[in-house]
Amino acid sequence: MQFQTRTNTCGELREKNIGENVVLNGWVDTRRDLGGLIFIDLRDRYGITQIVFEPGFNAEAHSAAANLRNEFVISIEGKVRKRPEGTENPAIATGNVDVMVNKLVILNEAKTPPFPIKDEVDTSEDIRLKYRYLDLRRPAIQKNILMRHKMYQLVRQYFDKNNFVEVETPVLMKSTPEGARDYLVPSRLHKGKFYALPQSPQQYKQLLMVSGLDRYFQIVKCFRDEDLRADRQPEFTQIDVEMSFIDQKDIFEIVEGLMKILFKEIWNKDLPLIPKLTFDEAMEKYGSDKPDLRFDLEMTTLNHVFEKTEFKVFKDSINNYGIISGLLAPGCGEYTRNQLDVLTDFVKKLGAGGLIWMRVKELAAGVELEAPIAKFLSDEEKKNIITSLKAKPGDLLFILTGAKLKTLSLMGQLRLEMARRLELIKPDAEPKLLWVTDFPLFEWDEQTKRFYAMHHPFTSPRLEDVQYMQADPARVKARAYDLVLNGSEIAGGSIRIHDAVLQAKMFKALGISDDEAEYKFGFLMNAFKFGAPPHGGIAFGFDRMAMIFAGENSIREVIAFPKTASAISLMDDAPSTVDENQLKELHIKIR
Amino acid sequence: MQFQTRTNTCGELREKNIGENVVLNGWVDTRRDLGGLIFIDLRDRYGITQIVFEPGFNAEAHSAAANLRNEFVISIEGKVRKRPEGTENPAIATGNVDVMVNKLVILNEAKTPPFPIKDEVDTSEDIRLKYRYLDLRRPAIQKNILMRHKMYQLVRQYFDKNNFVEVETPVLMKSTPEGARDYLVPSRLHKGKFYALPQSPQQYKQLLMVSGLDRYFQIVKCFRDEDLRADRQPEFTQIDVEMSFIDQKDIFEIVEGLMKILFKEIWNKDLPLIPKLTFDEAMEKYGSDKPDLRFDLEMTTLNHVFEKTEFKVFKDSINNYGIISGLLAPGCGEYTRNQLDVLTDFVKKLGAGGLIWMRVKELAAGVELEAPIAKFLSDEEKKNIITSLKAKPGDLLFILTGAKLKTLSLMGQLRLEMARRLELIKPDAEPKLLWVTDFPLFEWDEQTKRFYAMHHPFTSPRLEDVQYMQADPARVKARAYDLVLNGSEIAGGSIRIHDAVLQAKMFKALGISDDEAEYKFGFLMNAFKFGAPPHGGIAFGFDRMAMIFAGENSIREVIAFPKTASAISLMDDAPSTVDENQLKELHIKIR
Repeated sequence: MQFQTRTNTCGELREKNIGENVVLNGWVDTRRDLGGLIFIDLRDRYGITQIVFEPGFNAEAHSAAANLRNEFVISIEGKVRKRPEGTENPAIATGNVDVMVNKLVILNEAKTPPFPIKDEVDTSEDIRLKYRYLDLRRPAIQKNILMRHKMYQLVRQYFDKNNFVEVETPVLMKSTPEGARDYLVPSRLHKGKFYALPQSPQQYKQLLMVSGLDRYFQIVKCFRDEDLRADRQPEFTQIDVEMSFIDQKDIFEIVEGLMKILFKEIWNKDLPLIPKLTFDEAMEKYGSDKPDLRFDLEMTTLNHVFEKTEFKVFKDSINNYGIISGLLAPGCGEYTRNQLDVLTDFVKKLGAGGLIWMRVKELAAGVELEAPIAKFLSDEEKKNIITSLKAKPGDLLFILTGAKLKTLSLMGQLRLEMARRLELIKPDAEPKLLWVTDFPLFEWDEQTKRFYAMHHPFTSPRLEDVQYMQADPARVKARAYDLVLNGSEIAGGSIRIHDAVLQAKMFKALGISDDEAEYKFGFLMNAFKFGAPPHGGIAFGFDRMAMIFAGENSIREVIAFPKTASAISLMDDAPSTVDENQLKELHIKIR
Repeated sequence: MQFQTRTNTCGELREKNIGENVVLNGWVDTRRDLGGLIFIDLRDRYGITQIVFEPGFNAEAHSAAANLRNEFVISIEGKVRKRPEGTENPAIATGNVDVMVNKLVILNEAKTPPFPIKDEVDTSEDIRLKYRYLDLRRPAIQKNILMRHKMYQLVRQYFDKNNFVEVETPVLMKSTPEGARDYLVPSRLHKGKFYALPQSPQQYKQLLMVSGLDRYFQIVKCFRDEDLRADRQPEFTQIDVEMSFIDQKDIFEIVEGLMKILFKEIWNKDLPLIPKLTFDEAMEKYGSDKPDLRFDLEMTTLNHVFEKTEFKVFKDSINNYGIISGLLAPGCGEYTRNQLDVLTDFVKKLGAGGLIWMRVKELAAGVELEAPIAKFLSDEEKKNIITSLKAKPGDLLFILTGAKLKTLSLMGQLRLEMARRLELIKPDAEPKLLWVTDFPLFEWDEQTKRFYAMHHPFTSPRLEDVQYMQADPARVKARAYDLVLNGSEIAGGSIRIHDAVLQAKMFKALGISDDEAEYKFGFLMNAFKFGAPPHGGIAFGFDRMAMIFAGENSIREVIAFPKTASAISLMDDAPSTVDENQLKELHIKIR
């Protein structure tokens, strides 16, 4: 269809344009028929302009306008006019003018959409995803997509300015599953062989350091075939960064520079100082390696209080290298027995044996603890609990005890639950960034009875801990770090092993045989033999970061075409069946 | 290994730094042992700095330097010094200074690389690709990677500045093979179903227009499982662009703006005016839809000369709607019979029935044509050939005749061959851009006896040609265009069909049944029913464009980790076999 292309967008006209003859193209957003006059809000990405069909001004256009329905696509020609006094709309940028239509061309008709194109409409997410192309017309989600666009540009400009080289790494790579499952791609040319989609460009970026590219970045799609949790996508976007001849502090400096720009340009906020906690500190204080620092509610380790206790539960715990962790719930001393049962169930469901609670009371004799276990504690212990937790009358105390990491993690979840109950996270709370450092290098898996790399097998141990890698792996800390924003990990990285000997030691500690290491990572280990520089890097979860910056609660709100939690695209029904011929060519069949 | 991080890069020191104490990190590029003194060129991405080990300056460092070999990674501390007069090296930016080394730390040793890290080294491409991480250390290829980096930034800045929104489209999508083969990804969660990797984000970008995003761009990886020709990669990079409410001229304007920037920033050239040729003109003049305009050597259609000919070959051709195409080879009138046989073989191998040639001679009677077929031609015909081709004595003429497109394409290849023989493409020739427009909408396939979409099934026909879509598909031209640079297509696009009825008509013309269309493209056709704007776009082959801008002859020279022509990564041996367990989980087996 031939049509007049626009002279202006729907967000552009102002009082200075009054009297001009303009052409606008856009969608019918709303339509009001006031007897003789028809008012239409014409919408495009840039805004809304009111256009007016008046029989006296142009009878033909007015009569054609009777056919218009919501979401019709039209081209109009008309004259910009000052809106009659009192009819201005200060809510929109074009609100002081409208356009008297001379000529109307309908570019495309539209069926009634399955949901109105409005922000405040509550539609099931499944319907929204099926008609994503209509959902994307809603201003709130367009705003997210535009913010994401801005983030891409800010990120790249920043790294470009800092001498990083953008390099595209392969999407069709070798399958080296270590951690999550790979997505596989059967090869047609090589029967029985497969490519894998990258879980991250980890090995390539390390090779680029071996190549001497010095500073690398890429905003890149990665893939993990996991059983999806609510906020995961089978394909996700990562800001991938690697640097040579640096130490941890250089990575921190570069990342803080980026966060400073994002805080300013997206939120118009100055970057606060970013505190650092070691993994051990974070676990002891917040029961999490990604603590939300928008509220305090710190946990306190009470082992020192019970060094000489007669209370068997605590005594056993201490003897077994366990932990006794306490949490103060200020002003909750009047919680009912029922409320306390609910909280006990909460931690039990997560795997706790039970929950110890104590009410802090003001008695004639002084401050006292009232609790089922009170009778097992000495007066001094009770006094020390109160002092350690800075408890006041009217407060409630929780204590959990058992194996260290598990207990701290349980208490961390109770901490979050109490924060929700006490409404400690205000919607307008200042965002809180945090570095968590010195992660354990290994993670013990009870099920398979072996150690796994907590980050990945290329992470360098702290140099002073290398000596324990064989004898006491649990003791070894990694030169690994996470950046946490409002309780979400938004980036994680490490200084890498750049030495073939240490890398071999690492594979050995992970129970990866020489043959397996050679088959899977041989090219990387070989590369290290030709002069690898010291290097390290970091990767940002771009989707999650965009979600937080957009103030959304789901990453699907910042992804143009997301998949569901079962990895389906509701819009086009992918994945789908394919021709038997396609499978034949790929030398595979369904089993 | 703890080490001193650098104070400066190896490309940074100048005379103003003389006297400073500096730390440099880098690779040993070359090492010269001059009796007592050891000179090392220390290299990183930023340049080369000469460092000097002198026993009198620091004996310990000097003695440690004896162990250094090429490609060792080292950290040195030392004092910047003015080079002794006469030893300056004007070839490098740091050539007026060197660094007297106080302290040497070897960060990593290096085996002898399989080829020297030099540009001028002639190594087989297979070895280069196997050790790509070393190949990437060579200055020439680092330069290409850095140029590619710069192109990414220029492209994105340009589209951002022009209000385009960058949107990431899915990599795991629905298989809709129409044209090349899809790469498939088996789904673990949905037995017997598959994702496909995108051949292009075509459908998504059209949906984004339906969403009202108005202007979209993305630099994006695409995938085609083709039998690879020399200069194809299974995964390739595309600059993908789509615009709403526009016509062809708006696309041209946006693209020319981009080319102007690339010409300036990469080549420091002003963009020449970009001529436009229709597909028919390009074929008649150059025998190609991507003619190389760096030289003339135009072909000439001679049908008008032979309208009343008695020569059976030409007469039959004209009666069968064929073409008679002539090419002038200036100054080649003395080609030997043997040379002419070689050229005849050349076109015969490409599928020609034969090659007609004529020598242009200066005889007493005037200019004459000397040729085996001369006796079949009238004097007037001979005169008209000479006039039409502007032939002069000493020239050679070629004539091919037969079915139009095939004959023109053959003559186009002869044209390129003659250009090579006549050395018409100078290495320093000015680059030539060209728009080719009005492509046929359909392409007839002899083998399957059906029409295919020449671009893709979403391309709009010229509006005046819609009436012929059923009755005479071959006559229908598309609103499709290609951008050609130096004889390579670097971008192609079209105005799209935005109307569900016309789209259905298109599928019908392509022999795609309603059911098949619904299954494969139903979501797109549905989307068009909810108010699709007129839209169109273009996609650039980024790898090829980078290759031309880098002055290379293979796209592998501008891709960090390319695959071979049989889609293998020689570095890591992808594709490779995978665990039987992985296949089980994916519900597939090798057949």
